[in-house]
Amino acid sequence: MFPENLEPQVLYDASEHLLRAGGKRLRPFLVFKACEIVGGQRHDALPVAASIELIHNFTIIHDDIMDDDSKRRGVPTTHVLWGVPLAITAGDMLFAKAYEAALQSTIRPRQLLKILTCITHATIEICEGQALDVLFEKRSDVSENEYLAMVYKKTAALLKVAAESGALVGGGTGRQIQKLGKLATYAGLAFQVVDDILGITADETILGKPVGSDIKEGKRTILLIHALKHADDTQRQAILSVVGNREAKKDQIAHAIETISALQSIHYATDKAQTYIDKAKNQLASFPASSAKDILIDLCDYIVSRRY
Amino acid sequence: MFPENLEPQVLYDASEHLLRAGGKRLRPFLVFKACEIVGGQRHDALPVAASIELIHNFTIIHDDIMDDDSKRRGVPTTHVLWGVPLAITAGDMLFAKAYEAALQSTIRPRQLLKILTCITHATIEICEGQALDVLFEKRSDVSENEYLAMVYKKTAALLKVAAESGALVGGGTGRQIQKLGKLATYAGLAFQVVDDILGITADETILGKPVGSDIKEGKRTILLIHALKHADDTQRQAILSVVGNREAKKDQIAHAIETISALQSIHYATDKAQTYIDKAKNQLASFPASSAKDILIDLCDYIVSRRY
Repeated sequence: MFPENLEPQVLYDASEHLLRAGGKRLRPFLVFKACEIVGGQRHDALPVAASIELIHNFTIIHDDIMDDDSKRRGVPTTHVLWGVPLAITAGDMLFAKAYEAALQSTIRPRQLLKILTCITHATIEICEGQALDVLFEKRSDVSENEYLAMVYKKTAALLKVAAESGALVGGGTGRQIQKLGKLATYAGLAFQVVDDILGITADETILGKPVGSDIKEGKRTILLIHALKHADDTQRQAILSVVGNREAKKDQIAHAIETISALQSIHYATDKAQTYIDKAKNQLASFPASSAKDILIDLCDYIVSRRY
Repeated sequence: MFPENLEPQVLYDASEHLLRAGGKRLRPFLVFKACEIVGGQRHDALPVAASIELIHNFTIIHDDIMDDDSKRRGVPTTHVLWGVPLAITAGDMLFAKAYEAALQSTIRPRQLLKILTCITHATIEICEGQALDVLFEKRSDVSENEYLAMVYKKTAALLKVAAESGALVGGGTGRQIQKLGKLATYAGLAFQVVDDILGITADETILGKPVGSDIKEGKRTILLIHALKHADDTQRQAILSVVGNREAKKDQIAHAIETISALQSIHYATDKAQTYIDKAKNQLASFPASSAKDILIDLCDYIVSRRY
């Protein structure tokens, strides 16, 4: 009907930038392993695995704009390279491409609709979690339960769907799907708690983004919540002077990190992450031995031992 | 699993803001009428109609951020009221809610998957069209064909899906679905051409946004493309001095509009819109008389006669 079918190459470049930069690809990995542990074929899980990774990448392009983060996966963020308008559109396009990928699945229509419903629901939860994260930045009285509810939505919900849909595609029983969903949920909570820890303790060159940026951006991490709960007035002052203060100097941030550490908050968070990972691994107890089971256990251990 | 299920009310407020402000609701209207003209029940088309309106609303929230527009539908835009981060998330949530709405449809699974595929494909085209729109702002040599390809993606593609999916849900034949899709495509092109005309000729209080903002934002409208093609050097200068110039004064804009008018560009665009609408109405020739047919003809006529 039209003489030209223009495809703006620059939009595709911007959309693919962070995907090509790699990342851990934890979500598709979880889809495949959940599929395999219930005896399914990896190939059947491919469209869903791609879909969930695309959802994740769309959310991080938009998150980086909102937080005005300049680095991710060791490379400049999408809006830094292409500007905010094109980065918003690039994220939107990956969101649509996520459905395009899932819709290429050849599984039974009813099963596919179920998976699409789960992916959609998780994406709504991610949006809610993202909004809570932004809202929490303005509050200094966020409770640990509020934090966990936010992390569940922002991080764990999509991991849960990754595991559940992998198991569903693989032909798992209702009970198996549920257990793998729980595994992923606990692993997701542990993952974010470890992210919080790495945000102030990691080697910056390995982490791929600046250490202490959570603090400068005013993010409510589990460390900050624990520290503020146990701090005396002087300590509270040292911490709050840099939280959400984008002009904070390196030595001010270092002092705040020392204070958080002295309050045993890193220790507390490390214990918490380990508790979640133990609960995650417990979900595998009733599964017979398999290489997928071993790999899922390794994955759980990796989540708490990783350095970036 | 968690003690609190927090739902950030402010995110829902921001997401619903433009929906509540109304708008023409052209897309769901088209879904219903396409369903009715093929003998279907309006009720069966409701989830798809809601879905397509949500897609449209998600795109305008994000478009308003990208163009930094301050008013839409006579009210302040979402990012003006809630800030850019929450507005990005509000748009993302409406996008997810669009799939949630469609997935509540009770039509046959294979049919629903087909509709979801069409909606997804149209959304990818909207993203491409939006990117082209942004890219074109930096070029003064955009051709009418390039403009039409952009408008097809940005505006007509979703209207086409609205008509096609309404007809599909209503049980229309392949030929009927195709004709209604063509009707919506031509109507969509006419709609955007009329939008371009109203952008410089409308009554500002009726339009709900500032007259001349297209010019200040550097938008390549069909008027601008026609005018630049036929302008002499002085006229070209008068026009280009305000295109993309957000500091342009009222009298400068008025002078540019007079120049565009003197070049017969408004006349040219009005003819073009009418030609498209005639082609749109021609698609209805083989449909038997019905109230839905009359209403679709009225809708076509409304598109070219509307004042906002």
